[in-house]
Amino acid sequence: MEPLISARTNTAFIFDLDGTLLDSVYDHVMAWAQALRENGIEVPIWKIHRRIGMSGGLFTAALVRELGRDIDENTKHRLRDRHAELYNSVSAKIPPLPGTVALLKHLTENKIPWAIATSSHIKTAAPVLARLGVDPAKNVVITRDQVRYAKPDPDLFLAATEKLGVDITHACVVGDAVWDMLAAQRARALGVGFLSGGYGEDELIRAGAYRVFQDPADMLDHIDELGGRR
Amino acid sequence: MEPLISARTNTAFIFDLDGTLLDSVYDHVMAWAQALRENGIEVPIWKIHRRIGMSGGLFTAALVRELGRDIDENTKHRLRDRHAELYNSVSAKIPPLPGTVALLKHLTENKIPWAIATSSHIKTAAPVLARLGVDPAKNVVITRDQVRYAKPDPDLFLAATEKLGVDITHACVVGDAVWDMLAAQRARALGVGFLSGGYGEDELIRAGAYRVFQDPADMLDHIDELGGRR
Repeated sequence: MEPLISARTNTAFIFDLDGTLLDSVYDHVMAWAQALRENGIEVPIWKIHRRIGMSGGLFTAALVRELGRDIDENTKHRLRDRHAELYNSVSAKIPPLPGTVALLKHLTENKIPWAIATSSHIKTAAPVLARLGVDPAKNVVITRDQVRYAKPDPDLFLAATEKLGVDITHACVVGDAVWDMLAAQRARALGVGFLSGGYGEDELIRAGAYRVFQDPADMLDHIDELGGRR
Repeated sequence: MEPLISARTNTAFIFDLDGTLLDSVYDHVMAWAQALRENGIEVPIWKIHRRIGMSGGLFTAALVRELGRDIDENTKHRLRDRHAELYNSVSAKIPPLPGTVALLKHLTENKIPWAIATSSHIKTAAPVLARLGVDPAKNVVITRDQVRYAKPDPDLFLAATEKLGVDITHACVVGDAVWDMLAAQRARALGVGFLSGGYGEDELIRAGAYRVFQDPADMLDHIDELGGRR
């Protein structure tokens, strides 16, 4: 006899990219810090760190509030372009976080649906995805280009589950930033936090993470606890 | 009539340098990351971040445990030299954190004893101190060179209060790292944590911080709460 309720036995996993699968948060931080400094804008670096992973528009909006003065549109564009340029100049050397390839392989082999959803544009994400063995033609990848609003809005995660054909309330969002956890809550998904982006455990839990691991390798060691069974 | 107990009315403040007075933690992190990568040692960057501020010897010991294999003495020396070289190549551009100069000025003007105690060697610290207006001939500065063990051992803080001529149990250690807070507890000083090094508030409190502020400016705004009165 079939059990009455089976909808949530398995889970779909939606992964953030930077700081979650890829050890790139600190390079993003330093690229922003240098771009800002070159434009005469001094912001303490930890405050940049704590904003990585949110949409670029919200990042600059938060920056304006922090500075207490406006930044004109030209400067905003120049900052974004310079950040991309600086980041792209080092991104080829950035390694995946421990366990990334093994975790995605495990999910694929066990027919557990998964996707990647990132606040980055495809132009920035594409070379990195190639190195992780992720092919946007075969795997579900949602980038900034495909949604109106990035994190902490839920659009990226909703688009990912729609493309996977799963209900968002059966999905688990995996990310390293408070913005991933907030967007997961707004989407009514569960959130799993990774320490690999440099946030503290408590920050992730307060933002809604129902479980926190170090990195993909640590999550794979505990995959059965998350509905990641065959 | 004199009050019976006055010993703890005022407090001496012992400041960490990197990440506490100076916005240098992320540059230290990236210098270590690059030095390690150049030597074929891959460590996730957030784990480097969480070790900044502890003694160099303990840093490499922790690294060895993390890697699960030994690193020979030559490589350890090469790593330390390369880290110093990379850090020194950018350190002239590193700004003080908001409020650093104003906070030290406030303490000096109000005759509240203060000192700087850093796990760095004087060679690395000297140019930076000069930019903060701190003169080791006039102000109490304790560096790695002057003690046997650095943080999280209490030696740096004990040496600082000895030189100030105050009792360590009347002192307050101000730092951004868990290692500062642990060393403060071992010295029986109080600990005040700053978020400016990129740790989360909860990490600092769990390590013993009795108060957490964003940075020197935020501490100066609340100085009366800490015994920092005239």
